[in-house]
Amino acid sequence: MRGRTDLAVEMKEDIQSDEPITGVHVMTKNNGDSDIKEVRIVVENEQGAMSLGKPVGTYITLESEHLREHDEGFHEPMAEVLARHIRQFIGNKKRIMVAGLGNREVTPDALGPFVIDNLYVTRHLLKEGIISKSVEISAIAPGVMAQTGMESVTILKALVKEIKPELLIVIDALAARDSDRLNKTIQLADTGITPGSGVGNHRNAINEESIGVPVIAIGVPTVIAVPTIVNDAMDMMVTAIGRQGTKNVLKKFSEEERYQLACEMVTPYLENMFVTPKDIDEAVKRISYTISEAINQAALA
Amino acid sequence: MRGRTDLAVEMKEDIQSDEPITGVHVMTKNNGDSDIKEVRIVVENEQGAMSLGKPVGTYITLESEHLREHDEGFHEPMAEVLARHIRQFIGNKKRIMVAGLGNREVTPDALGPFVIDNLYVTRHLLKEGIISKSVEISAIAPGVMAQTGMESVTILKALVKEIKPELLIVIDALAARDSDRLNKTIQLADTGITPGSGVGNHRNAINEESIGVPVIAIGVPTVIAVPTIVNDAMDMMVTAIGRQGTKNVLKKFSEEERYQLACEMVTPYLENMFVTPKDIDEAVKRISYTISEAINQAALA
Amino acid sequence: MRGRTDLAVEMKEDIQSDEPITGVHVMTKNNGDSDIKEVRIVVENEQGAMSLGKPVGTYITLESEHLREHDEGFHEPMAEVLARHIRQFIGNKKRIMVAGLGNREVTPDALGPFVIDNLYVTRHLLKEGIISKSVEISAIAPGVMAQTGMESVTILKALVKEIKPELLIVIDALAARDSDRLNKTIQLADTGITPGSGVGNHRNAINEESIGVPVIAIGVPTVIAVPTIVNDAMDMMVTAIGRQGTKNVLKKFSEEERYQLACEMVTPYLENMFVTPKDIDEAVKRISYTISEAINQAALA
Amino acid sequence: MRGRTDLAVEMKEDIQSDEPITGVHVMTKNNGDSDIKEVRIVVENEQGAMSLGKPVGTYITLESEHLREHDEGFHEPMAEVLARHIRQFIGNKKRIMVAGLGNREVTPDALGPFVIDNLYVTRHLLKEGIISKSVEISAIAPGVMAQTGMESVTILKALVKEIKPELLIVIDALAARDSDRLNKTIQLADTGITPGSGVGNHRNAINEESIGVPVIAIGVPTVIAVPTIVNDAMDMMVTAIGRQGTKNVLKKFSEEERYQLACEMVTPYLENMFVTPKDIDEAVKRISYTISEAINQAALA
Repeated sequence: MRGRTDLAVEMKEDIQSDEPITGVHVMTKNNGDSDIKEVRIVVENEQGAMSLGKPVGTYITLESEHLREHDEGFHEPMAEVLARHIRQFIGNKKRIMVAGLGNREVTPDALGPFVIDNLYVTRHLLKEGIISKSVEISAIAPGVMAQTGMESVTILKALVKEIKPELLIVIDALAARDSDRLNKTIQLADTGITPGSGVGNHRNAINEESIGVPVIAIGVPTVIAVPTIVNDAMDMMVTAIGRQGTKNVLKKFSEEERYQLACEMVTPYLENMFVTPKDIDEAVKRISYTISEAINQAALA
Repeated sequence: MRGRTDLAVEMKEDIQSDEPITGVHVMTKNNGDSDIKEVRIVVENEQGAMSLGKPVGTYITLESEHLREHDEGFHEPMAEVLARHIRQFIGNKKRIMVAGLGNREVTPDALGPFVIDNLYVTRHLLKEGIISKSVEISAIAPGVMAQTGMESVTILKALVKEIKPELLIVIDALAARDSDRLNKTIQLADTGITPGSGVGNHRNAINEESIGVPVIAIGVPTVIAVPTIVNDAMDMMVTAIGRQGTKNVLKKFSEEERYQLACEMVTPYLENMFVTPKDIDEAVKRISYTISEAINQAALA
Repeated sequence: MRGRTDLAVEMKEDIQSDEPITGVHVMTKNNGDSDIKEVRIVVENEQGAMSLGKPVGTYITLESEHLREHDEGFHEPMAEVLARHIRQFIGNKKRIMVAGLGNREVTPDALGPFVIDNLYVTRHLLKEGIISKSVEISAIAPGVMAQTGMESVTILKALVKEIKPELLIVIDALAARDSDRLNKTIQLADTGITPGSGVGNHRNAINEESIGVPVIAIGVPTVIAVPTIVNDAMDMMVTAIGRQGTKNVLKKFSEEERYQLACEMVTPYLENMFVTPKDIDEAVKRISYTISEAINQAALA
Repeated sequence: MRGRTDLAVEMKEDIQSDEPITGVHVMTKNNGDSDIKEVRIVVENEQGAMSLGKPVGTYITLESEHLREHDEGFHEPMAEVLARHIRQFIGNKKRIMVAGLGNREVTPDALGPFVIDNLYVTRHLLKEGIISKSVEISAIAPGVMAQTGMESVTILKALVKEIKPELLIVIDALAARDSDRLNKTIQLADTGITPGSGVGNHRNAINEESIGVPVIAIGVPTVIAVPTIVNDAMDMMVTAIGRQGTKNVLKKFSEEERYQLACEMVTPYLENMFVTPKDIDEAVKRISYTISEAINQAALA
């Protein structure tokens, strides 16, 4: 309604009601001494899915102001909390494929490929008997359709058929609505990735239905879509005009109408643009590191 | 006034008058059979500089729809037109340093470093007697302040003092106001680069005054600043509301007031963000190639 | 016998005989005004395959001194000759997958991935009706086993099953025996790639038998294996000692024994090393460009 | 004598004598529980410099088998030992420039630029008052002469004149003689870098004399020169032939004659080649990380 977002927490915010939403369960907690805030949203049934606009499943959001800064300790507390959640999703599965979605050549979309670069891949080492105790990890950065001519889901489906992992973990850069969430939020979901998600146009759902094995999605919002920014501008204007005490013509537009208006204003060329911070190179490098560390830890344990 | 731009042609558009501007001379021409449109703006004196908001000097803008597309011929017509202009700026100078400004790790800011990657550097070959006929070309990609802790201008000033070229050519990614100009416009100027230009914050003018030798700037708009987008959104709203026949409260704001409003709306974090197209990787690679080819040709002739 | 090579022309040189080899047909020609030398080796039957040590099929070697140098014209003559040969291999096939083998992070092994970077991929454009006349090109850089945990052949087999191209073109960096061939030779073969080829250990044949569709291999020698260099050193010593008129104890070793000796001398760690020129970055960038141009041209025609 | 090396420990090995060398002091120690072996060679005077073939100064070599492997803890023990030594060299100096020598595009030569990528640069943050307690760190990756047309020493001299640091730390990839030392040895020296060092041809000494401030060099051997390999091959042959009980003609050549022979055998093209391990990408990434961590730690303390 209020601009595209891939974050369940932001979709939850749309529902401006203090009443509990049927079929949607929300829990918030802080992680010990750390500044890591954790929100767990469970979409329990189809009614919840309709209300929230997200498939049935569990969405965990980890947020830390700290994640935006250079850290000598490589954000170890965040890596540990993330590893613990990944481990729970893994359960007793022994063979995992990790897919780093996105375009290595476009900085805010490079998160997925960068995670793969730092991953400790073990499938071949186990097969050759070089190591013996570890979850089997294979990994792929399938690239984007402009580079391969193929949908990511097609490539992953083909590989899963051949390699037969028990679980697919996909890493992807996400779009947020609120600039304040960029590069400090990590979202885990056991629902895979639904159409339209991510920075690039990775289209077609990557989930248990399309792939054939359970799919865990790990994502970090690194961009905002242009219509979101335009829409925000209009919201802010409504407020600004209101402050001036003038009769506010904009109030005549409903929120939905306003977003429609924002989309109309955005030319097709603009629609294909995104908004991203200037220090995105540092942020993507840093957070991809933390995510691969978390997967490495989860696979060892 | 209407959002930050590094393009002289866009600053010219601000001056909504059919009268000629004193001290500013504008010429437009098409290049033969090609689709390359050329606008030459000469700021003749301080009065012109005040009116346009750009230092005294010559600004040449080359524009081609074609530049946005994959091209088997590597955009040779554009490279040739560009080479001709560069050659004129070079005149009979024999020693040139080329500096590729910007951050190699942030795709839309990587234009400068990528041009350096493809350049045919000759200084050492001439010194060692391996080749004999060529303009002397040295090259540097100084990085950005977050990587080096030093201003680009400081690094370039130091190198020019030591290497003593007769001319410095700086390549930089620019900000445009109109999304329609991104990745299809090349601007040449004999004024160097003035503060606030470029995607990153390269601060401090790089020009004959600061560097000690004439500075030619070659730039391509690859991003739009966020306040520009927000401001555009408001402009579009004024129009949209107008169409609906309602009494339009927004008209009460002057253009300047509206841009002020847009800036206020933009939080400090948002201000440090930019808008860029999704295919920016292809565009930057392609255009950097065309520019380095143009410099290579100009240096050989 | 004399050190590992992936080049049919070098294996041919091993057979020190002026007699024609049964089942192996060799033709040499020069390409018009250009300096491109072409050697076509046809292994006609199993007897020829035994003699040459290469599977039955056609091996075309294009060689040009020029390929080692910076070229304003992007080595267009070489691209054209190569395109002509690729077109012949394509015939009237309409769907092609191109695979860039090798490790993007190891310069002399990055040839394959770099070719993919410059390729004009069309599969999705044809599917979406954006273009209509072109051979369908899909592309993948599958990475190496240390990055993915999977053999390249496994990844390609899975993708070919799903995408169903009629032809697979694999690009790979090769090992030569003679340093004089590095970065100036391009080999095309309709036999795919046989075990042990390439710089990295891409193991397992990638050919019609393993993949299910015909496989064209395009390769460029960018490295020499360490045992080859050691063996060459011994050969040179035999000659050097011979010149001194001394009774030459080394002559007592047969060529085969000498290579055995060289391999024994090479420790396991050394065996996993390769020899490559210092300007390998420029060479790989340049030649990958020429190869992708050739494939682009062949796909359009 | 026995093939080019940049390691003081290897030059020491050449001197086949159990007697102490006048003017050269050697100390060996192990670092606590870790597997880090430390050799400190102090060249005390010109006589020592003549004997060892290295300028007067201190050379510390840290060696750890562990450094060749993937490590969850990022080789923290090595980073700590290294940081301690760097801190001693820094003393109470407050302004440091770090230069990452070498070619980012050639994997085994990318060590220096990669260290710069991970460095926590503070000069601009201190100047802007964003942080207050830290040594001032500026950083540059000057590129190689083929990219810039300028010697690294020229670029660094110019920058040091302008920025006025009290100490220059240069990071460079080195050549070793023994393949067993590659990617597991780190050498620190307070002598800077002497001609012919490094993988690329960075020529011209970078030391206090040429730069004007003290220069600390940190290097890791990532390659072996080709003549070294050829020479080793000959040595091994002498031994191999000896084992066979034959009268050994090679014994007639002195060690020096043999190395001369090896160099003659190596064609000019081969001379410009180097030998490097296949997993060089992982090794360079890993070790550059450890070095930048060590500098970061040393600068904070």
